[in-house]
Amino acid sequence: LTSRLPAVGTTIFTVMSALAAEVGAVNLGQGFPDFDCDPELVNAVTLAMQAGHNQYPPMPGVPALRQAMAAKMEALYGLRCDPNTEITVTAGATQAILTAILAVVHPGDEVIVLEPCYDSYVPNIELAGGKVVRVPLVPGSFRPDFDAIAAAITPRTRALMINSPHNPSGQVWSAEDMRRLEALLAPTDVLLISDEVYEHMVYDGQQHQSAARFPGLAARAFIISSFGKTYHVTGWKVGTVIAPAPLTAEFRKVHQFNVFTVNTPMQHALAAYMADPAPYLQLSDFYQRKRDLFREGLAQTRFRLLPGQGTYFQCVGIENLAVAERDLPEGEFCQWLTREIGVAAIPLSAFYGNGFDQKVVRFCFAKKDDTLKAALERLARL
Amino acid sequence: LTSRLPAVGTTIFTVMSALAAEVGAVNLGQGFPDFDCDPELVNAVTLAMQAGHNQYPPMPGVPALRQAMAAKMEALYGLRCDPNTEITVTAGATQAILTAILAVVHPGDEVIVLEPCYDSYVPNIELAGGKVVRVPLVPGSFRPDFDAIAAAITPRTRALMINSPHNPSGQVWSAEDMRRLEALLAPTDVLLISDEVYEHMVYDGQQHQSAARFPGLAARAFIISSFGKTYHVTGWKVGTVIAPAPLTAEFRKVHQFNVFTVNTPMQHALAAYMADPAPYLQLSDFYQRKRDLFREGLAQTRFRLLPGQGTYFQCVGIENLAVAERDLPEGEFCQWLTREIGVAAIPLSAFYGNGFDQKVVRFCFAKKDDTLKAALERLARL
Ligand SMILES: CSCCC(=O)C(=O)O
Ligand SMILES: CSCCC(=O)C(=O)O
Repeated sequence: LTSRLPAVGTTIFTVMSALAAEVGAVNLGQGFPDFDCDPELVNAVTLAMQAGHNQYPPMPGVPALRQAMAAKMEALYGLRCDPNTEITVTAGATQAILTAILAVVHPGDEVIVLEPCYDSYVPNIELAGGKVVRVPLVPGSFRPDFDAIAAAITPRTRALMINSPHNPSGQVWSAEDMRRLEALLAPTDVLLISDEVYEHMVYDGQQHQSAARFPGLAARAFIISSFGKTYHVTGWKVGTVIAPAPLTAEFRKVHQFNVFTVNTPMQHALAAYMADPAPYLQLSDFYQRKRDLFREGLAQTRFRLLPGQGTYFQCVGIENLAVAERDLPEGEFCQWLTREIGVAAIPLSAFYGNGFDQKVVRFCFAKKDDTLKAALERLARL
Repeated sequence: LTSRLPAVGTTIFTVMSALAAEVGAVNLGQGFPDFDCDPELVNAVTLAMQAGHNQYPPMPGVPALRQAMAAKMEALYGLRCDPNTEITVTAGATQAILTAILAVVHPGDEVIVLEPCYDSYVPNIELAGGKVVRVPLVPGSFRPDFDAIAAAITPRTRALMINSPHNPSGQVWSAEDMRRLEALLAPTDVLLISDEVYEHMVYDGQQHQSAARFPGLAARAFIISSFGKTYHVTGWKVGTVIAPAPLTAEFRKVHQFNVFTVNTPMQHALAAYMADPAPYLQLSDFYQRKRDLFREGLAQTRFRLLPGQGTYFQCVGIENLAVAERDLPEGEFCQWLTREIGVAAIPLSAFYGNGFDQKVVRFCFAKKDDTLKAALERLARL
C-alpha cells in the first residue's frame, strides 16, 4: 500500500495530548479549554433531542442556525448573506477547510499557504491534487509579507489561505493589511480561504478584521467559523462556511458527499443560544484576562515572551533555556518540558513543511486560572 | 469557476425531501425514521454533557466506544480487532466512505462500484482522482455478477465497493456470495470497501454476512457501520470504520485532516448504550413487522412488489401505472407521485451513473405504522 500522504504522521496535537496524559503533565499543548461550556447550552441540546430533533437536518444545515449566522455576520461585519445559498453548517472548521479545497482545487492548481500554518492545510491541498506554494510570514513578527504573496501568485494560483487571528502566533491582521490584500487580489481570480475560527479572541482593543468586512475579499472568500472555539465545546464539531452563492454551490456538492449533514440537536441548540450575542461579544475580555495572567507569570521565567493580540495561544522563545547545556530542537524541548517539567507545549516547527526550527514553542491559555497557575509554578522552576 | 463535480447536482434525497415538505406529501423518499430514538439514549447524551465530555475526544474516537464496537464485532461476526489500531469513529458512514477512498485511491487508480449504488460513491472516487469502473448488478434480481466483477479487475484496480444489505434494492448477499468474492479477490491486491450500514435489518430468517466473517475479506476491508441507522438517530452522524492496522493508519491520516474528531457527548452516550445488545439484536424483528405491513398494503395496489430481504427500503415496479396514459420516466413519476398522490419516493435511476430507467422506485418503510397506513391509503387510489 502506497500512502496518499507519505509525509504525514499523527497530528502533533494528538501526540502531545497523549504524552501529557501519560506523564501527568499540565496540558498547554493542544488548543482546547479545560473548563466547561455554559450549562444553558447543554440544556438546549437536551431540549432539542427531547423535541425529536434527532434525524437528518437539511443538508446545508438547520435553517434557524444559518439565519442566526446571517444576522451575526451583518451585525458584526456588515456582510449581508443569504442563509439559503451562502451559508453551510459543517462538522467543524477542519472539515470546512478540506471540503472547500476539494470543491475548488483541481489537480495541478496552486494554493498559497502562509507559514507557519495549521497542520491540516498542506495535506488538504495534497489530497485535492493541488500544488502547495509556501510563503513565509515575516520571521519573528509573523506579519504578512505582501510582496512575497504577490510574487507567489501565478496564472495557476487557485486559492490563498489566510488565518487571522493566527494560530500559532496570535498575530492579528489589521484593517490596513486586509485592504492591501484586497488590492493585491483585485486583478486576479484567486479565491480566498479565510480561517477565522479565533474571531472572538482579539485583545488590547483591536478588532477582528473579517474578510466579510471587505467587499473585494468577501466576493471571493470562504469564511470559516467555529462554534467549538467560541462556545467552549470543541468536541461538538460544528462550524460554518460563508461564501458567495456560486462558491457555496460547489462547496455543497462536495459537502453532501463528505459528511452529508451535521449533528442535528447541536445545531438546534446553537441556533437558540445565538439569540443572545453576549457570550461571543464578551469572549475577548474573558480570554484577555487569562492571557494577561499567563503573560505576567511567564515574564517571571526565562522564556522570552512573544507578542500576540489574538487566539488562545501564547508563543515564547526558548533560546535562553539550554537543557543540560544542550540546545534542544523545539520538538525535543517540548518532549522534555512535558516529561521533566510537567507542562506540555507545541513546537512551532509543527506548523512548517520543512520543520523550520526558530526556538519558539506555543502554549494554550484556554485553561482554568488554577491550571495556568499550576503550569506557571512548574515553568518558574526552569 | 470550473466545477470539480460537473455532473453533480443536489443529492436526490435532499431534493425529494424538500419537495415532500413543500407539497405536504408523506415522505417515503429519503431514508430516515419518522419516529424517535430510545429516550434512554437521549438521557445518556445529557449525562455525558453534564459530566463535561464536551471537548475534543481522542482523534480515533472515544476508547469506550471503540471497545464496545470491538466486543460487538467479535460476538456477532467472530472478528477480533484491536480498538487502538483497527477501529475509528467517523462523522457518519458517508464521511467514512469518502475518507477511506481518499486514503487509498491514488489518481488514476480504478475503483469498481456495483450499480445501482448509493449516490456518494462515484463522486467520492472522482474527488480522489480515481477512475470509476461500473459493474451492473444482475438486472431485476440485483444479485452480484461475479463473472462481470472478475472481468472488471485489472492491475490498476485499487478497490471494490460492496453494500449488503443493499440500498436501494434490499438484496442481501449470502455466505456463498461472500465466499465467492473471497476466492475471486484472493489472488489480487484489491481492497474492499464494505458498506454495511443496514447490517441489523435483515429479514426472513437470513443473516447479515459481514465481510468481518470472512478472513480473506476482513484482511483487505474497510467495514463501515452506522449508529444513526441502527439506533434511529440519523441526525447524530456517528459511524465507525474497522480495517486492519495498516489500512487504519492510512485512514486516520486523512480522517484527522478531514473532521479531526467526532462529537464527544454522542460517542460517550453510544458507548454506554451499546452495553445492552438487545436494541440491535431486535432491530430486524422490529423492521420486518413494518416491512410486512407495508408489503401487504402494496400488494393491494397496482405497484409490482420486488423482493428484498434487508434494509428499510422496498422497491416496486411501476410499469402498470401509466399516468394520464403516458409512461413517465422514473424521476418524473416520483415527482408526480409526490405532488399528485402525496407520497414521496426515490427513482432507482438516481443510483446509476447513466440514469438507467428500469421503471422501479424505492420507498422507505422506516416510519410509524400510521404513516405507512396513510401512505398506503393514498397509493391504493392509483
Ligand atoms: C484540532 S486539534 C487542536 C486544536 C488546535 O486547533 C490547535 O491546538 O492548534
Ligand atoms: C444521506 S441521505 C439519505 C439516506 C439514505 O441513505 C437514503 O435515503 O438512501
